Amino acid sequence: MSESNNPASLDVVAIGNAIVDVLTQADDNFLVRHGLTKGAMALIDEDQAVALYGDMGSGVEVSGGSAANTMAGLASLGGKAGFIGKVKNDQLGRVFTHDLRAVGVEYDTAMAAGGAATARSFILVTPDAQRTMNTFLGASAALGPDDVHPGTIDRAGITYLEGYLWDPAEAKEAFRKAADLAHASGRRVAFTTSDAFCVDRWRDEFLDLIESRVHILFANEAEIMSLYQVDNFDDALQHVRGHCDIAALTRSEHGAVILSGDEVHVIDAEPVTNVVDTTGAGDLFAAGVLYGLSQDMDLHTCGRIGAIAASEIISHYGARPEANLAALVKQKLG
Amino acid sequence: MSESNNPASLDVVAIGNAIVDVLTQADDNFLVRHGLTKGAMALIDEDQAVALYGDMGSGVEVSGGSAANTMAGLASLGGKAGFIGKVKNDQLGRVFTHDLRAVGVEYDTAMAAGGAATARSFILVTPDAQRTMNTFLGASAALGPDDVHPGTIDRAGITYLEGYLWDPAEAKEAFRKAADLAHASGRRVAFTTSDAFCVDRWRDEFLDLIESRVHILFANEAEIMSLYQVDNFDDALQHVRGHCDIAALTRSEHGAVILSGDEVHVIDAEPVTNVVDTTGAGDLFAAGVLYGLSQDMDLHTCGRIGAIAASEIISHYGARPEANLAALVKQKLG
Repeated sequence: MSESNNPASLDVVAIGNAIVDVLTQADDNFLVRHGLTKGAMALIDEDQAVALYGDMGSGVEVSGGSAANTMAGLASLGGKAGFIGKVKNDQLGRVFTHDLRAVGVEYDTAMAAGGAATARSFILVTPDAQRTMNTFLGASAALGPDDVHPGTIDRAGITYLEGYLWDPAEAKEAFRKAADLAHASGRRVAFTTSDAFCVDRWRDEFLDLIESRVHILFANEAEIMSLYQVDNFDDALQHVRGHCDIAALTRSEHGAVILSGDEVHVIDAEPVTNVVDTTGAGDLFAAGVLYGLSQDMDLHTCGRIGAIAASEIISHYGARPEANLAALVKQKLG
Repeated sequence: MSESNNPASLDVVAIGNAIVDVLTQADDNFLVRHGLTKGAMALIDEDQAVALYGDMGSGVEVSGGSAANTMAGLASLGGKAGFIGKVKNDQLGRVFTHDLRAVGVEYDTAMAAGGAATARSFILVTPDAQRTMNTFLGASAALGPDDVHPGTIDRAGITYLEGYLWDPAEAKEAFRKAADLAHASGRRVAFTTSDAFCVDRWRDEFLDLIESRVHILFANEAEIMSLYQVDNFDDALQHVRGHCDIAALTRSEHGAVILSGDEVHVIDAEPVTNVVDTTGAGDLFAAGVLYGLSQDMDLHTCGRIGAIAASEIISHYGARPEANLAALVKQKLG
């Protein structure tokens, strides 16, 4: 591994699906009627998108995308963030672009001029604040290796990759190129497994990637158990040790565990009075941890910042911060 | 005035601008920098829209439009609502259409195939929860008399018209046609003055319209004072008596006054713990009053329902109800 000669001018650059979320309230019957698995992300085609949207209640459009949410969070924490992902040059594509740039994230991926529309995820929020996502990937799937510029990866201390991107074939190549470039530059690679069904589709490739390329792994309880095909979290913990430098594993209201070599840190969830919508909780936890790591903070503090950022996002609809996270963290950590 | 032979199958049909709101947080400096008047609505052209959006923070897209919000509120209260307004057949136009139909509002106005994009209003919400609106009318201005079908107006007990529509010339003709049709059918015409600057632009025409065609007038304190060019609310009250059958005048946190002949009802504002965003407060007050009137309730109860509906809308971002208003009213009125 050769070290890059340049100081990192970006703390983190993320590669992910560029998605506009369409949030709506739904009851459990709606999920049953449409055969949806609560809490999961399902990929849908355009026909399914039209059918689902036609049956959904009125929505709110908010820019989303897992890794993009993480970068918006990183910027709100005071970090220097970049994003690589594909929209079409349509109304929602311009909304996505505006929203990311407006919070200070560097984002210059060429918009698709033709082809499928900008990606949308129909997010059904049930009264228990759980979110169930149905994503039409659209233009997002047109991301390819040419969209990953070596200069950008070289400028970033950490390259962060979302597992969701493993579904579209071209995007997977972009993802691999970025991981290889980061590795070659001596930069760190972070990866989130994104979703348990996603892990199930790509288990062997994910394991291979983690072993060969990933320094910092993010996964939730269901994902890490699926990855190692074990039926309890403790067994998964034993497996993940040694597979990557740092593993940050989230457990919803039970907080998180961060492992690194012999270190184990148990992080409590930050108390939230009124959980409104859990969309983006994992994305913002990752933002906090990545921010802490980029500032060379200790792992416990990294985890605390992640928990604070996650607590902000679940207290309102949508997966982009409404509060200034840097100020919130300062207030909470003292 | 001849009476319609048909029973009203719609409680209210509204004609208004078909707008998608783009809500963002802004501080007072931002308003000053862009020369904006807090609390008002300004019309902007496409170049101004691009410049303002480029400088704005990240936004949330929610279907809006004053009269459309009122119809969404009426539907949530249990009323039968219709809407006439123009979008383009683009992504935001389809969002607007979906959101209105999804809450049960009848909405069939032909989409524009070409021309300007669907209207957007950039709504800057300051920390005091005030909203300042900058509207690019786009396709909304293409509404014309041909979009007003006599059968629809005849089917509605009340035709509700928003003053904002007086700005685009073609829309004004549509508005006049609807008012004339409603009058000819012996239906009631309701009208909101919408905005003090709007009143200032069209004072004489508004006064003429109110005198000749309007049964139910909605205005806030600033608008009714501007309409009669007086500098206190009390003087405005004396002027409005006799100009229409019912006048419902809102005074923000001071509640509302409803006048009809010799009757005067003072309605207190419904207490709200945390006022987040006042966008839509007037629209939802109108929804409550119109619902009550359509159910032949007494004026005090009409006003109370208006106050309850307004209190729901100001407790969250966006101008469409998140709660079931019928249930909320039942709970509050007992």
